[in-house]
Amino acid sequence: MNYFVKEFDKDNVRITGYVHDLSEELQNVNKRPAILIFPGGGYSMCSDREAEPVALAYMAEGYQAFVLRYSVGQEIPFSESYDDAVKALNYLKEHGEELHIDIEKIAVAGFSAGGHLAASVATMCDVKPSAMILGYPCILASMGKLLKKELPGVNEEVTNKTPPAFIFSTSDDLAVPVTNSLEFADALDQHGVEFELHIYRKGQHGLSLAKTFTSSGKRNMVNPAVAKWFTSSITWLKGIWGDFEVEDDSEDFEMEKSVLGINTPVTILLNHEHCKKILLQKLPDLKSMLETNPMAGSYSLSVMNRYSPENVTDAMLKELEVELSKIEE
Amino acid sequence: MNYFVKEFDKDNVRITGYVHDLSEELQNVNKRPAILIFPGGGYSMCSDREAEPVALAYMAEGYQAFVLRYSVGQEIPFSESYDDAVKALNYLKEHGEELHIDIEKIAVAGFSAGGHLAASVATMCDVKPSAMILGYPCILASMGKLLKKELPGVNEEVTNKTPPAFIFSTSDDLAVPVTNSLEFADALDQHGVEFELHIYRKGQHGLSLAKTFTSSGKRNMVNPAVAKWFTSSITWLKGIWGDFEVEDDSEDFEMEKSVLGINTPVTILLNHEHCKKILLQKLPDLKSMLETNPMAGSYSLSVMNRYSPENVTDAMLKELEVELSKIEE
Amino acid sequence: MNYFVKEFDKDNVRITGYVHDLSEELQNVNKRPAILIFPGGGYSMCSDREAEPVALAYMAEGYQAFVLRYSVGQEIPFSESYDDAVKALNYLKEHGEELHIDIEKIAVAGFSAGGHLAASVATMCDVKPSAMILGYPCILASMGKLLKKELPGVNEEVTNKTPPAFIFSTSDDLAVPVTNSLEFADALDQHGVEFELHIYRKGQHGLSLAKTFTSSGKRNMVNPAVAKWFTSSITWLKGIWGDFEVEDDSEDFEMEKSVLGINTPVTILLNHEHCKKILLQKLPDLKSMLETNPMAGSYSLSVMNRYSPENVTDAMLKELEVELSKIEE
Amino acid sequence: MNYFVKEFDKDNVRITGYVHDLSEELQNVNKRPAILIFPGGGYSMCSDREAEPVALAYMAEGYQAFVLRYSVGQEIPFSESYDDAVKALNYLKEHGEELHIDIEKIAVAGFSAGGHLAASVATMCDVKPSAMILGYPCILASMGKLLKKELPGVNEEVTNKTPPAFIFSTSDDLAVPVTNSLEFADALDQHGVEFELHIYRKGQHGLSLAKTFTSSGKRNMVNPAVAKWFTSSITWLKGIWGDFEVEDDSEDFEMEKSVLGINTPVTILLNHEHCKKILLQKLPDLKSMLETNPMAGSYSLSVMNRYSPENVTDAMLKELEVELSKIEE
Repeated sequence: MNYFVKEFDKDNVRITGYVHDLSEELQNVNKRPAILIFPGGGYSMCSDREAEPVALAYMAEGYQAFVLRYSVGQEIPFSESYDDAVKALNYLKEHGEELHIDIEKIAVAGFSAGGHLAASVATMCDVKPSAMILGYPCILASMGKLLKKELPGVNEEVTNKTPPAFIFSTSDDLAVPVTNSLEFADALDQHGVEFELHIYRKGQHGLSLAKTFTSSGKRNMVNPAVAKWFTSSITWLKGIWGDFEVEDDSEDFEMEKSVLGINTPVTILLNHEHCKKILLQKLPDLKSMLETNPMAGSYSLSVMNRYSPENVTDAMLKELEVELSKIEE
Repeated sequence: MNYFVKEFDKDNVRITGYVHDLSEELQNVNKRPAILIFPGGGYSMCSDREAEPVALAYMAEGYQAFVLRYSVGQEIPFSESYDDAVKALNYLKEHGEELHIDIEKIAVAGFSAGGHLAASVATMCDVKPSAMILGYPCILASMGKLLKKELPGVNEEVTNKTPPAFIFSTSDDLAVPVTNSLEFADALDQHGVEFELHIYRKGQHGLSLAKTFTSSGKRNMVNPAVAKWFTSSITWLKGIWGDFEVEDDSEDFEMEKSVLGINTPVTILLNHEHCKKILLQKLPDLKSMLETNPMAGSYSLSVMNRYSPENVTDAMLKELEVELSKIEE
Repeated sequence: MNYFVKEFDKDNVRITGYVHDLSEELQNVNKRPAILIFPGGGYSMCSDREAEPVALAYMAEGYQAFVLRYSVGQEIPFSESYDDAVKALNYLKEHGEELHIDIEKIAVAGFSAGGHLAASVATMCDVKPSAMILGYPCILASMGKLLKKELPGVNEEVTNKTPPAFIFSTSDDLAVPVTNSLEFADALDQHGVEFELHIYRKGQHGLSLAKTFTSSGKRNMVNPAVAKWFTSSITWLKGIWGDFEVEDDSEDFEMEKSVLGINTPVTILLNHEHCKKILLQKLPDLKSMLETNPMAGSYSLSVMNRYSPENVTDAMLKELEVELSKIEE
Repeated sequence: MNYFVKEFDKDNVRITGYVHDLSEELQNVNKRPAILIFPGGGYSMCSDREAEPVALAYMAEGYQAFVLRYSVGQEIPFSESYDDAVKALNYLKEHGEELHIDIEKIAVAGFSAGGHLAASVATMCDVKPSAMILGYPCILASMGKLLKKELPGVNEEVTNKTPPAFIFSTSDDLAVPVTNSLEFADALDQHGVEFELHIYRKGQHGLSLAKTFTSSGKRNMVNPAVAKWFTSSITWLKGIWGDFEVEDDSEDFEMEKSVLGINTPVTILLNHEHCKKILLQKLPDLKSMLETNPMAGSYSLSVMNRYSPENVTDAMLKELEVELSKIEE
């Protein structure tokens, strides 16, 4: 992988990159969707609990992942954090080639205040991400009072150009009232933007992945019900973007049970006197092969050729094809 | 994170490390269990498909992960690959401190030929790992014929000192007959070693995580039924090692509904005339707090103090405790 | 089980009961929570797709389940359907004993128009259910226009006495706009009622369990992402009500590895010369037992007595306890 | 549903049926696969814990389910229990029509001694079931000694005519050693019969569904890791038999974004001046429809006609089709 830290020209502002390298063996994922993560921390810090563990979770599902530590602090206006976020998004787009990113598929993800930042970029920025993932987000302008900072009400910024959103929170969040999520969903709905929303019954603010290793050792930061948000977000991303491409690999499935030939399961061929004779003659090792691995009988000669070319060589296969085609049934 | 490559004094032999750093916020995971992965490839290569994606999957679940590229090739005897594996295991143990590893909790994991190597280390080595994870492993001495290399039959090496094993494979594996897994399980059972074994009905050899991004773009390398092995392996690891430690965080749950005090839900206090008077007097902001976030009423004053210390200060809490204790019910 | 149909004094109005019988072997579930289901159908029919399959799903999870076919039709006012629902709820409460119901744990569940009915009972009725489960519910008074019937806006009926709610729907529901769910969640939040809300990105109206066997054979009525609502509802019910009670069964886990006695794994006893002698003398069959089942060695003599009383009799256990206690370590 | 008890001409021998009725709304499941369950109990009883709860679990997944209470007791030879089982299987086949069973898809399922009976029927009977599901089964002839009854070693009865098997057990089962499952899997493998095998690390004998409501209230009878066997068995059944049939419901998905017509999302039509004029003229209610449900804009006119025929009538749709086809782009 390519793990890097890209410092900005500002103190403590940086992108941390978690990038899958290319591999000869994995040609179908030369370009991957990317997730750009904004940790929470009330615009006064960027929490480690919502940074690397979340990036690794998305990376493990095949995505490229990035964490932005943005400008924070009492004296920092929202516009500075916002500028950092926009710059980070543009950085990914501009370096798409070298970072092996499909730049049509970049999601911003943020938690709490970071969710406010992610939703701001997704709604207010000209060059938008194509999706957003928001964990127990601050949304309403009134949250600014709590955070002692002037903040835009992101629900007011939604238009029909806003990309689809995945949102989760808990109904009894004491720090960021759940009405933030509800009002945002309402705004998306009013503008015809599709969204997914999971509000779990119970759960403290700031759960991150809600697992033991993101809990700081506190039991009420572990929450199996809420932890399902992550898998749901993967299902959702595959819903809007599709999964990584795969091709039919027809050879293995081209099984013909009615015609006797190189695509017929060997067991069926062996039940036919004439075929059996041909097989045992042309493939003297067949008997011992089937003794070692009786399940092999459910495969055809062409599959055997593919997976055991040392036992069923190309030449043998060709010859068998000719011989079997001569059989009249 | 600490991503590193540690070269051995041999061509193409190296450990790749995927190590969680320490964080002030995550003190309960200063030491983590580790997974040492041996990719498969018939002792003639080390497949990328069974290397980094598997390491990242375990890392995302909170473990330290390492991939060993071991000596391979027609002319390389088994003993060389084995020596590399033992050396890698010892490297982890010796560098446990700097790699933030709990050295009592190191599992080897291997696929196909890599599974043979993992099982060999787990059975034949003096300084054993504490667990092994084997994917569609070669086990039997007879596999050596196929791989054109003299190999020990690992099932013959099992003793009651062998650590617990997690094994998965598919019943119709054409390349490595499933009897390898069955014979190994049988040997473990005969020596009273606990194990977990998942043999799925159908699935081609070499599935790795069985997901789109490990499939090389081939449809029959994607297999949702078999893909469950990974989650099962996490459940199993937590079964043998326990999960990361968490502590009760009693403050949040100490809810007293019968006694009126600072641990009583505020809604209940407000239903009591005298309490209500005290609250509204000492907490003038309470009304607006509850308007903004009506769910707050289900929390106690001490929880509010903890999560909104700017609204319910320590001084207020102390004073309220005194006042409420004076109430006779 | 007790499967019954209880006809009301009205055409086509009836309760169908799916009731677990008592069993000597299952004493911890003599009383079970109950789910009372109102199928949807626009108040003009009661759909089979949202009736029995849903009842069976809850029954399979251990609950008592009931389906109400309520009064429907163009000429039927809402109040009649409502009366049927209230009567059904009271029927369950009054017959709690014979139906093996824990009457403190009755949830109403409804889909579409049935969701409107369930939410109406949960908010407007004096004797409330203790929970509600709503699938893509009609909530708003404005839905009455569509259904050509005067309907109460259930969101306006929410108070702080309203029981907790589980709600699911899809963001692109064409028939019942998702704003119904959002407005209801908002009302619950405003009154401090805890709730769980899952709005899935995509899914046609009327998905029921979203599985093949509830699909009427239409592919777009099968939706694995939405199908997760059912399991989430079980997690939620266990969150608000708790699970069925179980007791610690301490005998099996009282394993002492340091003291040598009847609670020590047999393998450990056999490693101690003196113990081994005692065991082989008092338990002549032990050797053959361990040959048949080597894992038995990880169990203690008291566990063996419990599970194989024919091999380790009560008398033998008592004698062994005395003998082993004499050993000085 | 059709819940019935069919008594045999023997004391305590009976089939209990859990049969889905037909419904006009569920035409794709007029015939369903069936599961015939043999509870365990050491051939001395038939345990309720492995009877109805298991039947209900399969029924809830859409299958027809049946429980057989077979002849048990010290004096009853195996052949009598076996005869009962064969008779029950034949009963299902003969009454397939009235029980709405697809008689090509009948699985036997059994637990412990019931697993021995299920495997016996599947191997020794002329008219075989098409699949078997075995929970912690007795298999070996040597189990007869424990159960004090002469029993066939079912592993010795396997041939290449044996139907596929799903087997689960636990590696530390004290009552029925896991070697029973391993030996049976080995026999299946030797005869080229595909199988699925899940051996979980830890779990007491007799777990049934391993849930609270099958636990008799004992904590060690609840085991979330082992409880996964049930869902795995459903995946397996769908693997061998396929799922219930569904048809493409093409209308909903025939979305054309490039051509302007009745299959184009309405939002796109409204962005085109000329189209917009036609729509507002022919569909005066459209504006208020979109205000109520903004997501409706993502649907086409033909979908609207299908789901809201009162708003977009057949006549309107026809007219709109004609008008829109005249537009030159």
